[in-house]
Amino acid sequence: MKIQADSTRYADLIVAPLTEHELTILLLSLGVLLATARLLGELAQWLRQPAVVGELLAGLFLGPSILGQFFPEFSAELFPTDGSVTVVRDAITTLAITLFLLVAGMEVDLSTVWKQGQTALKVGVMGMVVPFAVGIFCGWFFPIAMGRSESADQLTFAMLFGTALSISALPVIAKMMMDLNLYRSDIGMVVISTAILNDLVGWIVFAMTMGMMDRGHGSEHSIGITIMLVLLFAGLMLTVGRWLIDRMLPYIQAYSHGPGAVLSFALALALMGGAFTEWIGVHSIFGAFLVGVAVGDSSHLRERTRTTIDNFVSFIFAPLFFGSIGLKVNFITNFDPTLVAMVLMIATAGKLAGCWLGAKWAGLSRRDGWAIAFGMNARGAMEIILGMLALNAGLIGERLFVALVIMAVGTSMASGPLMQLVLGHSRRRTLGNLLSSYRYVHRLSGENRRDVIRELVQAACNSTNIDVEEATHSVLMREETMHTGIGRGLAIPHGRLPGLAAPLVAIGVSDNGIDFDSPDGESAHVIFVVLTSPEDTAAQLEVIAAVARAFRPEWVIERIMEARNFTEMLAVLKSSTNSASTH
Amino acid sequence: MKIQADSTRYADLIVAPLTEHELTILLLSLGVLLATARLLGELAQWLRQPAVVGELLAGLFLGPSILGQFFPEFSAELFPTDGSVTVVRDAITTLAITLFLLVAGMEVDLSTVWKQGQTALKVGVMGMVVPFAVGIFCGWFFPIAMGRSESADQLTFAMLFGTALSISALPVIAKMMMDLNLYRSDIGMVVISTAILNDLVGWIVFAMTMGMMDRGHGSEHSIGITIMLVLLFAGLMLTVGRWLIDRMLPYIQAYSHGPGAVLSFALALALMGGAFTEWIGVHSIFGAFLVGVAVGDSSHLRERTRTTIDNFVSFIFAPLFFGSIGLKVNFITNFDPTLVAMVLMIATAGKLAGCWLGAKWAGLSRRDGWAIAFGMNARGAMEIILGMLALNAGLIGERLFVALVIMAVGTSMASGPLMQLVLGHSRRRTLGNLLSSYRYVHRLSGENRRDVIRELVQAACNSTNIDVEEATHSVLMREETMHTGIGRGLAIPHGRLPGLAAPLVAIGVSDNGIDFDSPDGESAHVIFVVLTSPEDTAAQLEVIAAVARAFRPEWVIERIMEARNFTEMLAVLKSSTNSASTH
Repeated sequence: MKIQADSTRYADLIVAPLTEHELTILLLSLGVLLATARLLGELAQWLRQPAVVGELLAGLFLGPSILGQFFPEFSAELFPTDGSVTVVRDAITTLAITLFLLVAGMEVDLSTVWKQGQTALKVGVMGMVVPFAVGIFCGWFFPIAMGRSESADQLTFAMLFGTALSISALPVIAKMMMDLNLYRSDIGMVVISTAILNDLVGWIVFAMTMGMMDRGHGSEHSIGITIMLVLLFAGLMLTVGRWLIDRMLPYIQAYSHGPGAVLSFALALALMGGAFTEWIGVHSIFGAFLVGVAVGDSSHLRERTRTTIDNFVSFIFAPLFFGSIGLKVNFITNFDPTLVAMVLMIATAGKLAGCWLGAKWAGLSRRDGWAIAFGMNARGAMEIILGMLALNAGLIGERLFVALVIMAVGTSMASGPLMQLVLGHSRRRTLGNLLSSYRYVHRLSGENRRDVIRELVQAACNSTNIDVEEATHSVLMREETMHTGIGRGLAIPHGRLPGLAAPLVAIGVSDNGIDFDSPDGESAHVIFVVLTSPEDTAAQLEVIAAVARAFRPEWVIERIMEARNFTEMLAVLKSSTNSASTH
Repeated sequence: MKIQADSTRYADLIVAPLTEHELTILLLSLGVLLATARLLGELAQWLRQPAVVGELLAGLFLGPSILGQFFPEFSAELFPTDGSVTVVRDAITTLAITLFLLVAGMEVDLSTVWKQGQTALKVGVMGMVVPFAVGIFCGWFFPIAMGRSESADQLTFAMLFGTALSISALPVIAKMMMDLNLYRSDIGMVVISTAILNDLVGWIVFAMTMGMMDRGHGSEHSIGITIMLVLLFAGLMLTVGRWLIDRMLPYIQAYSHGPGAVLSFALALALMGGAFTEWIGVHSIFGAFLVGVAVGDSSHLRERTRTTIDNFVSFIFAPLFFGSIGLKVNFITNFDPTLVAMVLMIATAGKLAGCWLGAKWAGLSRRDGWAIAFGMNARGAMEIILGMLALNAGLIGERLFVALVIMAVGTSMASGPLMQLVLGHSRRRTLGNLLSSYRYVHRLSGENRRDVIRELVQAACNSTNIDVEEATHSVLMREETMHTGIGRGLAIPHGRLPGLAAPLVAIGVSDNGIDFDSPDGESAHVIFVVLTSPEDTAAQLEVIAAVARAFRPEWVIERIMEARNFTEMLAVLKSSTNSASTH
């Protein structure tokens, strides 16, 4: 290995450790960036948008685009653009994105693809080849209009533009499928497995593109060798590496102390894999991604380890990375409406056409074809990462980068609603969305089943113009045919009411307990009333199942009774459903 | 705020982003450091030593002490001591230790201290005041013999030396109590609550000492203001901050999406708290520690969030920090046997005397007094962190630092065995330690209860000279008086055998299932045989309870049946007990 003679770097500089002042700035800027990114990320999710939209906006607010416009000195002090703090912050965001790709890799479940077989393969291939061809064509013939950086090589740029158009965002798509209650459906599995295939091939092609770049100064390998090494490494990780890791995990779990051994193992491997691909001449994220695929595929990987890595990366590292993008690029001055419109159009047209043709080829219906095409059009975080790498490598300019980011966000935001439109599917009902503070009776005054039900039905019908008497009657009728005490202190009386647009749910707590004829003989302390429409047959079962699921952990009922207000009650329910959903 | 005029720093240097080569080195060095530190940490635990011992050794091996001696070029390439990579690595280890202190703070449970009341207070005060006085005395009158750095102020050094002798390591002590099965005992609670008090006061005193340092160039506040701000911040965080966080957590949990909101909140707060104390002029770890105390004290903090932060910090950040210590300091050339012996002696004598007197004052028995004194003598990770900060601040030289590290490790290693000696308590039996591959029958050949029991007793008595017939008879006799099918496919036949030194356990799997008269009517697929001595009355219950606990999660029995060999079986059991112990 030799010291690189990079033109922007002076190898004999004395780089001193951070001063107290610089360390203060570093900690403060990371804290502020994390807090802002997560806050806006939550806000975006509240508006039913991907979290990454909010995280990007955080950088826009804190960076040159907005804060820098109005408080240039403050912005420059907190988020400097040169000096040791910047070097450290850049290194940390590089580490963050490397670990993000480890998690992205862990989500790639190859067995899902094999199970779907031909359909996934056909949609996947067409969904990549068509936009890739469109991209190559546009990138080759209209490079300047597409925003090619002047120093970039024509072929490399065309390849990059093709990859940029053909990539899909597996995490965004998976999340969307879950929200639309499609994850386990036939069409959901086709979309997921196509996205997995797309992700895997897309990243390998992109790694090859990165390897093709004329890195002139300091490149340690020729282009041919780089590409060969990329393919060799990918091939080895997906075969021997996968097998070896699957063999090693039980040993690590059996002979280690405490639950963290596999965690350290996965992270150390990802760092070393990243170092290897960085050394090859492509970016560190490829190594981490492939390590993620190999580790995530092992049946010996425990759900708990997966969740720990996933939570830390999704809620700490990802917000820091996506938040930092806006710190570097001015989204206002580099916003080029023509370029944005063009990229958005070409990307969407290419992807839709490719996927639709693939679906047709696979013999799927016209409606399913459109649904899949709209689903696959989401670009999400992956497109942004690709754009960032291309920008850092000097392949594209800031204008095209901004256009790619907007395209990524736009396609991600449109995908869900469009799929929903085509399929007419309703969103998944979550318990949290159905409850509200005026449908929560902190302490029920009734002492018997009839009174309590009337009280809760009243709460459920609050601020609607439903006839409380009729609704109460319906619930009481049901109660006579079947007792609704679930046991362990929970009861879910329920009834049907014609003309109800959405389920109505109320919850109340009784300290003394009400007899609901539970199988375990215990009286009920937490009582839900569920009113649904007889037309919407699935709703009743869905809501009751959701309530029962939320109360599965033993601690829930006690904590609900201890809650002092609606917020604390909701916090307990959310914690329970969150921890349940990770299994 | 102003740019600091540090003599070793040139403010107008152009610090360029990391080159590809530097990024490769950074990723590789972090990966290798993490892997080595964790591997040696596991090895240390296997030898019943704290993990931190192994993590320190990793740095010794990879750094100038050993690898640098034999392969100086390789060591300098992978772990450079200047340049951008070093700046970034130092910043990352500073972040790592800041988050480590967040977790350390989260372990400080103030209500435990209040519950113990006077006893904890008396032992805590004496256990701090006596060694502190001894340290001040030695540091003031024999500063040079104690290894004071020449530039350090006499009073500051004496304060630091006093703090160094009076500090205790809560995490090490807590772990030790659990290993000795003392955590929930009376004496265990005294030791834990004393250690908590010691930790809290110790860190605040240390922060004040750091604030007292003559920071000459670039100090933003006078010493008086710094100390006032430290006390004010500590006071506010432990009262208003604690109350506010406790109020905010339910809101965050109720209105956020996904399980990560509290995670981000805690980390962002820790970073900002760290930035604030760094700005005051004491180290960032104090802010993170106090944030940790405030967050950890909230009853609304979910066990799952706590575990996620704890796992990530304990198994990723802590090994990186402790591993990196050996990279900076040469432990061979700076090893001064006289100083080491002296520090070890003074520290132990002061702590033992203080705690023993405190225990006597609180009216505890002589035996309990010694046990508490030995327990509190463990210095562990906290002493090493304190030493590192003092070294970085130029208060102490490398010789004293090495002596402090060895003292920390030595006292931690001696504490457990000495407490055990005094109390005569036995270590906790873990299921993992009792099982071995030749006591595992992958597929039982027997088809009825009697044959299967004989087969397993044979396995249990393997490589012992126990009479198998007699042992089998004992188990079968027991089986006649009480059926040992637990339900859900598990059975634990057991018997007593005079003269057994330690419990014998064997496990076997039966695909067809054996009838063990389970209450649920299902036949048993996983069967344990447990043989214990009639003299050791607790052993039988303890082992049977451990087995039952390991099989509580529903997935365990199925996974045990799927396991293809002993290692996979052990991995399942370990995963189950690990995940159970975190609740």
